[in-house]
Amino acid sequence: MKVLKGACLFGQSGGPTSVINASAAGVFIEALSQENITAVYGAEHGIKGILNERFFDISREDREELELLKTTPSSSLGSVRYKLKSEDVDETDYIKLLEVFKKYNIRYFFYNGGNDSMDTCNKISKYMQKSGHECRVIGVPKTIDNDLAITDHCPGYGSAAKYVATTLMELYLDTHVYDTGLITVVEIMGRNAGWLTAASQLAKYKNLGPDLVYLPEKAFDLDQFIKDVKRVAKMKKDKVIIAVSEGIKDKSGKYISEYASTVTRDSFGHAQLGGLANFLANEINRATNIKVRPIEFSLMQRCGAHLASATDVEEAFMAGVMAVRSAINGETDKMVIFRRDEKSNKYKINYDLIDVNLVANAEKKVPLEWIKDDNSGLTQEFVDYALPLIQGDFKAPLVDGLPRFVKLKKELVTIKQ
Amino acid sequence: MKVLKGACLFGQSGGPTSVINASAAGVFIEALSQENITAVYGAEHGIKGILNERFFDISREDREELELLKTTPSSSLGSVRYKLKSEDVDETDYIKLLEVFKKYNIRYFFYNGGNDSMDTCNKISKYMQKSGHECRVIGVPKTIDNDLAITDHCPGYGSAAKYVATTLMELYLDTHVYDTGLITVVEIMGRNAGWLTAASQLAKYKNLGPDLVYLPEKAFDLDQFIKDVKRVAKMKKDKVIIAVSEGIKDKSGKYISEYASTVTRDSFGHAQLGGLANFLANEINRATNIKVRPIEFSLMQRCGAHLASATDVEEAFMAGVMAVRSAINGETDKMVIFRRDEKSNKYKINYDLIDVNLVANAEKKVPLEWIKDDNSGLTQEFVDYALPLIQGDFKAPLVDGLPRFVKLKKELVTIKQ
Repeated sequence: MKVLKGACLFGQSGGPTSVINASAAGVFIEALSQENITAVYGAEHGIKGILNERFFDISREDREELELLKTTPSSSLGSVRYKLKSEDVDETDYIKLLEVFKKYNIRYFFYNGGNDSMDTCNKISKYMQKSGHECRVIGVPKTIDNDLAITDHCPGYGSAAKYVATTLMELYLDTHVYDTGLITVVEIMGRNAGWLTAASQLAKYKNLGPDLVYLPEKAFDLDQFIKDVKRVAKMKKDKVIIAVSEGIKDKSGKYISEYASTVTRDSFGHAQLGGLANFLANEINRATNIKVRPIEFSLMQRCGAHLASATDVEEAFMAGVMAVRSAINGETDKMVIFRRDEKSNKYKINYDLIDVNLVANAEKKVPLEWIKDDNSGLTQEFVDYALPLIQGDFKAPLVDGLPRFVKLKKELVTIKQ
Repeated sequence: MKVLKGACLFGQSGGPTSVINASAAGVFIEALSQENITAVYGAEHGIKGILNERFFDISREDREELELLKTTPSSSLGSVRYKLKSEDVDETDYIKLLEVFKKYNIRYFFYNGGNDSMDTCNKISKYMQKSGHECRVIGVPKTIDNDLAITDHCPGYGSAAKYVATTLMELYLDTHVYDTGLITVVEIMGRNAGWLTAASQLAKYKNLGPDLVYLPEKAFDLDQFIKDVKRVAKMKKDKVIIAVSEGIKDKSGKYISEYASTVTRDSFGHAQLGGLANFLANEINRATNIKVRPIEFSLMQRCGAHLASATDVEEAFMAGVMAVRSAINGETDKMVIFRRDEKSNKYKINYDLIDVNLVANAEKKVPLEWIKDDNSGLTQEFVDYALPLIQGDFKAPLVDGLPRFVKLKKELVTIKQ
């Protein structure tokens, strides 16, 4: 294996998670310990920070603060949603990226994100290779949606799933305190894959979960939905809890939330913001005489680090570490994945690598056979799959009863050419 | 002091909190240890359970389960919203209550709730006295709203405040990950008093809080609100976080949420459910070109026991214990209150009693001088007041990574007459 000496650059991309910074901690702490890595940079707002040469010098950060990254939610370097155009269409960004990579002698590039970010990794790597700038590129997975291909699961999912299950259990108790009817509609994130909504089954497994669960994997039918709700209401004295993915679609493939934004216009004719939960609550309200309460887990489900899963924090951290070690060992154009050790009695993950372009444009959905026909939830297979991912607590130290999150110095790097 | 031998009855009333069952644990555990208390009953759904003779025999519950009440949110006995009519108007309920109290030999009655529940305590006690059925009645305070008179604060408030502050800190980080504009409107509970919305100042004290805070104590002006938002947006690169109490009113005293439900009708002309946050988000959207996200803390803020304050759990428990001890010592027609020891350097609470009718029809609001004129939040006086109330973590043991909440047997008592 050829020794490659140079700077390492890390960026965060896409929607944040509770443990996204744990991967940053893994990359940074490991990179700082590698003798062939001459400098460790964090890009501000991912690819945008590279294009604008906004790099934080990570060697100037205190080690204790880097440790606090593990328990601080939401991309501490800043994130971005920026899709690189194909270089055939517009080479401008690539030319700038190459210039910057050369200027800062970036030989190791780690990018943390979902499938779009893996596409970015792939494009940048290919362009650097073509241009003769040797650089090893490794993707670090991240998404609460859990929709990346091949990997057993994604860092970020376990903590979001723990938030969803725990909060649903608490809501179950809250919505059952009165002996009067109440239908609660809880909207959970997940645009195309229902993994996070499926986590409501973990609450159900504890007998404190929703009665009805709707994932995007199955076509949503409003009439059937109302029938389901009425059926459960009749059985359960008008007490119904419903978990619904924001990404449910009808059989034509149209998001139900699109109907919501068409229908809900105020008296000025302005389209109303928000929510699938509101829309469904109104539909139920119209069809029954039962009180309905729409609830959105909103951003809380992806930043609720006080409910992070220790397993998830550890794995997110290790994903960062493994990315660096793999690159040092000569790997490039790969993404770190988790393989579940099926031979082990206990839950055990092995870290592995796959070609980044296998992930770039794929999407992993909840297997249809895990979704119960009567919309009452998921099968035991799902519980067996998801339960190990939410184990253990690991959260920020408390100061004044409140979390002490990381405070980075964020000293900008300046290189004169 | 006259010894009074007989059964003790406890009921939960009104909106639940994260620690309401800690008070139940306090009453039950203390009552079970008192030799003059011959039986310990829990009423199902508060006053309704008394009228319907639905009593759980608490002596049949395992001690370990009673301990788990401390960390289980939301009225485990079931709650109720039931206002006793004045006996001059309709004596029916009172006659039934007296009959039941006599039948079960209830000599100690503890009722857990807010001002309405204290009114219930007062009415029942007066009627029993008049009817010659000796019974000691003590109210146990409870409300996330923190609006009960005289007591320094109310059990339930500290945990809800901790939820609000912690979650706002996390949301602050989440809403700052992109370098694009975003205005976040967070709706927080509190119909007439802004204590819970004020807790957002604790996040602000940690530099991770809302830019603008609106409480019901100050008349809300929509034009001023839009001006405030625009001003902050200009200063802070279109990043604004707003905490707003559900109970804000305009200068005529009309709830802003009432305008919301009038305005938001869908295309069928049906009034739309939900929310003040949605309404304000739409107003901002109309006045600026900045992306707006409405968020409601909804029921989560009152049942998020995984974020309970250890101080709150302990005080809620002790409120229950003190209620029983006071009654045994001959007190009646009182409510347990907390007095802050102003002489102590450290935060210290002394338990005391006041006449229940002093609380029954009063409401304690946030002092106007604690609210900053420019709607930017609360003064340091508020922080000094509220910070001690959110200290420490105390939550349910985890089984499978999820909270193990109480499971009561709930054996119904049957007495033949």
